[in-house]
Amino acid sequence: MKAYLAGPDVFLPNATEHARRKVEICARLGFTGRPPLNEDVAALAAMPEEQAWETIFRKDLAMMEECDVIIANLTPFRGVSADSGTLIEVGWFLGRGKPVFGYSNSAQSFAARCASHARLQPDALAGTSVEGFGLADNLMIAGAVARTGGHPIVLPPDGQDRAFDSLEVFELCARLAAEAR
Amino acid sequence: MKAYLAGPDVFLPNATEHARRKVEICARLGFTGRPPLNEDVAALAAMPEEQAWETIFRKDLAMMEECDVIIANLTPFRGVSADSGTLIEVGWFLGRGKPVFGYSNSAQSFAARCASHARLQPDALAGTSVEGFGLADNLMIAGAVARTGGHPIVLPPDGQDRAFDSLEVFELCARLAAEAR
Repeated sequence: MKAYLAGPDVFLPNATEHARRKVEICARLGFTGRPPLNEDVAALAAMPEEQAWETIFRKDLAMMEECDVIIANLTPFRGVSADSGTLIEVGWFLGRGKPVFGYSNSAQSFAARCASHARLQPDALAGTSVEGFGLADNLMIAGAVARTGGHPIVLPPDGQDRAFDSLEVFELCARLAAEAR
Repeated sequence: MKAYLAGPDVFLPNATEHARRKVEICARLGFTGRPPLNEDVAALAAMPEEQAWETIFRKDLAMMEECDVIIANLTPFRGVSADSGTLIEVGWFLGRGKPVFGYSNSAQSFAARCASHARLQPDALAGTSVEGFGLADNLMIAGAVARTGGHPIVLPPDGQDRAFDSLEVFELCARLAAEAR
């Protein structure tokens, strides 16, 4: 089994080392983790911007094609929800009928994060409703994960947030993916 | 042609009236717009939360199956990027190989919004990098739209933000979808 290791982890300062740790955890659980790092595109920095991002887009899509499942880091990133690029990838796996596994290092509910956001930016989007449903994120994300992977989004088991780069909840999620083979 | 009218428009206080205006614009351009409103699920409010969100999830997926293209409102919503549920849907269309059209009422670049977010929440995710590439949002979104719909994300033509519920840029985008048939 090959698992696409989606997430904003690629934006960490130590993304390469962090990806190596994720790949090791997958190997220990008996499957191959594929992190969508950009280090393998050596010429990226020298390219014009449009060519650079299109190269990353094509590379990531090709890696997704090769993988059997996605394990998505759905920890909130720069807003109330998961990283936007990761969500495109989760949707792609849903569209392809491939299993989606997802986890978050945040123990807060989606509704609680939306309420915090509204307090922080009171003028923004006033009057819009929140469909919380007690879920960890937007219902389309929760549905993609629960319906295809067979488990809800994996959260910190003790209800306490983990550090953004903690891999404890990732490992719980990776174990579910390994067991589902 | 049937177009799935994705977007956080469903969270507007006047979502039903707003959807009606979008559907009218599509009809004028010669195609059918399908808004994923929840008003048709009359029993929703009486259901347990889990049953309610799963009903919406299944209903939206079924509507997506019926549609030929997606026209996605990618205006930033509760964070630096587009609405998270909308992104799942955009990824689904990408995975299915159906054309993705997208627009945003924000004229700001993704990088500029990330910088604003970092100023607003300086402790959050310090040190993470931004892959801006001069794009309107994360490159996976830009790629999904440009690669399948054949046009970049449609933005306000004069470089000025529009109100969140303005339909001017939607109409420009819907026109591109109509012409691409």
